[in-house]
Amino acid sequence: MPSPELNVPIDRESEEPIYRQLIRQIRAQIESGALTTGARLPASRELADELAISRISVVNAYAELRASGYLSAHAGRGTFVAGSADALTPVHNGNGHLRALNAATASLPAPLLDKSLRELMNMARKPGIINFGPGAPPVDFIPVMQIRDAINHAIDRDGAKVFGYEAPEGFQPLRASVRDYVSAFGIQCSAEDVLITGGTQQALDLVMQSVLGEHDVMATEDPTYIGVLDLARTRRMRILPVPHDGDGMRLDVLENYLLDHQVRLIYVMPTFHNPTGSVMPMHRRRQLLALANQYRVPILEDGVYHELRYEGEPLPPLKALDEHQNVIHASGFTKNLVPGLRIGYVIAHGSVYERLARVKATADISTPGLNQRAIQLLLEHGILARQLERNNQELRRRRDTAIRAAEHHLPTEVRWTLPQGGLYLWLELPHEGPNAAELYLSAVQHGVAYAMGTVFFGNGGGNYHLRINFGAHKPEQIEEGFRRLGRAWRDLSKHYADYEKALLL
Amino acid sequence: MPSPELNVPIDRESEEPIYRQLIRQIRAQIESGALTTGARLPASRELADELAISRISVVNAYAELRASGYLSAHAGRGTFVAGSADALTPVHNGNGHLRALNAATASLPAPLLDKSLRELMNMARKPGIINFGPGAPPVDFIPVMQIRDAINHAIDRDGAKVFGYEAPEGFQPLRASVRDYVSAFGIQCSAEDVLITGGTQQALDLVMQSVLGEHDVMATEDPTYIGVLDLARTRRMRILPVPHDGDGMRLDVLENYLLDHQVRLIYVMPTFHNPTGSVMPMHRRRQLLALANQYRVPILEDGVYHELRYEGEPLPPLKALDEHQNVIHASGFTKNLVPGLRIGYVIAHGSVYERLARVKATADISTPGLNQRAIQLLLEHGILARQLERNNQELRRRRDTAIRAAEHHLPTEVRWTLPQGGLYLWLELPHEGPNAAELYLSAVQHGVAYAMGTVFFGNGGGNYHLRINFGAHKPEQIEEGFRRLGRAWRDLSKHYADYEKALLL
Repeated sequence: MPSPELNVPIDRESEEPIYRQLIRQIRAQIESGALTTGARLPASRELADELAISRISVVNAYAELRASGYLSAHAGRGTFVAGSADALTPVHNGNGHLRALNAATASLPAPLLDKSLRELMNMARKPGIINFGPGAPPVDFIPVMQIRDAINHAIDRDGAKVFGYEAPEGFQPLRASVRDYVSAFGIQCSAEDVLITGGTQQALDLVMQSVLGEHDVMATEDPTYIGVLDLARTRRMRILPVPHDGDGMRLDVLENYLLDHQVRLIYVMPTFHNPTGSVMPMHRRRQLLALANQYRVPILEDGVYHELRYEGEPLPPLKALDEHQNVIHASGFTKNLVPGLRIGYVIAHGSVYERLARVKATADISTPGLNQRAIQLLLEHGILARQLERNNQELRRRRDTAIRAAEHHLPTEVRWTLPQGGLYLWLELPHEGPNAAELYLSAVQHGVAYAMGTVFFGNGGGNYHLRINFGAHKPEQIEEGFRRLGRAWRDLSKHYADYEKALLL
Repeated sequence: MPSPELNVPIDRESEEPIYRQLIRQIRAQIESGALTTGARLPASRELADELAISRISVVNAYAELRASGYLSAHAGRGTFVAGSADALTPVHNGNGHLRALNAATASLPAPLLDKSLRELMNMARKPGIINFGPGAPPVDFIPVMQIRDAINHAIDRDGAKVFGYEAPEGFQPLRASVRDYVSAFGIQCSAEDVLITGGTQQALDLVMQSVLGEHDVMATEDPTYIGVLDLARTRRMRILPVPHDGDGMRLDVLENYLLDHQVRLIYVMPTFHNPTGSVMPMHRRRQLLALANQYRVPILEDGVYHELRYEGEPLPPLKALDEHQNVIHASGFTKNLVPGLRIGYVIAHGSVYERLARVKATADISTPGLNQRAIQLLLEHGILARQLERNNQELRRRRDTAIRAAEHHLPTEVRWTLPQGGLYLWLELPHEGPNAAELYLSAVQHGVAYAMGTVFFGNGGGNYHLRINFGAHKPEQIEEGFRRLGRAWRDLSKHYADYEKALLL
């Protein structure tokens, strides 16, 4: 059905926000029957241009109308007036579960209501399943004996001090080691600018809590790291998702948002972006910095995958290019060395740093001193540097295996871009077949799991995307996992085609 | 000066909140000169009765007027119209620092603006100073070699798993061990009700974040644990301090607050309360539970000192008496075993538990698996039980030393109550002499430090109180510390008397 002429006169003098006017009027037209089930609405950009309003007003209005069931969205196809016939096509899978899963997916754009980070991590933890879902780094990369030695060394050297309270800002020698470590990426700072945290997740949490209050707005790439979306939700902050175009967030859209909204923080992962694996090119980095400086909005840079590069030339983190101390850099030793010791860090300055240290002290007083000392020794003794060299070679081998397996086992219409680093392959399924949610139970039944694309989007979308953590698995498992995934897709597609045919009869 | 007749007509129909009307009118009378410097205001209870308004309206109005410098309070003496002559009596100490310290203290009742948990911990960390200030348990109690063994055992048993991500709720065997451990205090729960946290501080933070939004109100004992006051401030929550009468919070005041305010959580430390060392008697425990149930307000019970009893019969935690699952119990292995591994826990149920686990996952994904395993082994092997037996004997000896030293070295007018457990002695200085803030720099110069009473009060007060952590020090140090404190007090009192005399000339 073609886009109807939407008759939505906007009153700019009204106290009612523009997006609420949109919601009210579109809802009224659906309820009156002026807009009928299945009718396609104009794309948000078109409608925004036509009405000369900000696109985010349209995006927000559509999102709320989808959340309340008036509209439904199909990635790449558009936004439609919802109705009983317009629910996501149900697919018979023999036990009715898939229908429930679809219903949950259909309740997007509040994707995290049903799929939190926690639940995602708990999914498909059955024995025998090759689980490409979680974001964990390879367990077989963890240098267990070296960590054990470092721990014992620290205890024997420092005695009971190892088990006392540490300063909230962190164990001083580790702060100095982090300063030295990041200087290799071009980040110049002093040890006093380094705050040690309980993993990278806590680093992000502390920054968000320090900079944002409830209802404050943070712009993110869309898709983005699920942990940040979850944080925003539990901390009652608002996310403005900025479309990701393959090189990072679209700066034209970001600038519109900076103009129209009280954006208080911009969260980006410029290198080996989670989930897409993309790298923000140098010119985009500079433009983003200039834009953020111009509007005086701080950037939270997540550098956690930065060192996992196995191809191409390294690009400097934003923090290394930051001439105005407007970038807060969060990272950690969780993906590149050992997740479970939970050591991350923030690099920040001045009043932001002061507030961070205060929030850290109230959050948990200090990060365990033993864990900090072990990481410090691993840095000092060059263990991390050696690990990275070896691990990145192996990650490249796994990436190549994953690409070959994807080419071999998946339908030719499946698309991806080649990651030059990191752990993830971001796949897009053909939009004619089952979407990632529909495929999920079939995949689990075939013994493979992945992260559904929808969970990474702040405002709906990603139905046909899935994230594969190939890095965490050995080549044989990668090969076998893709074989199972291909089988699951073909099985389901067959039923799916039959079902769609049946609907046409 | 006697209390003047305060002429403050209250308009109950006005949209202006009553306490703001009070502030406006008192300020106007001070500015017009109707109320002059040094005039004593009616006690909050009297004024509330006279105007037939809630006492908290008066308390809040006075607090804000003190914060903005119009009024000043003197513990036990009342509230006065401030003025240049009414600043805290400056005392000459040769370098001018004390004046700055007084100025900071005078800006109470926002006591935490200048004295955060972090700053308190960093104070007086000079070599040679006997620092009774921090709340840390005795370093010499930490069973270093047993912890080292437990850590190595865990690594050798579980390999790389020790260093991977743990479930946000915690390492399952530790959750079960905590269930068994708390059953000895009468707390019945399942392992699924146990959430493992990064120390007791994180346990408190997670509960507060789960139950309270920004601007929500939590009632606490007054004085109370500084870490909770700091949390409320950084998380933008509001504290209603309920006076502590030696047996715990006054339930008549609490009930008034429950009637007048949207109290969302009641935080208490019933056993070996920090900072006073008091124990809430059984009948008060039952009354508090009944009151909280009646008003359907959950209780956050902080049990972190519960096991440090060296005298008298143990009383059950509130959680052991909780028939309506209205108590959230937070505690940890930080004070009784080892602070630096940062292992605490929350016991909660149902939707509260669900929300807690979600907040925990977003805060830092999970508590380090190695640290959890080490604590689990120490519990399983009975190390904690043996430690407690030995440590409590030693704590008793230290308490006795502290009491004898206080009697011997401090002026006879100094008062305290005898603690039956925990780490602290809560001293009250004679109100005729220097207060705790005035004494502080003199004490540091004499080589001893303590925690100033003011930092534990949510709304001003405690100027003549100080908290002594005797538990963290060996008997010789305790003796010497009190000797220095007595000397500091006598030196200062001499100057102080001279100075006051000089003022009268």
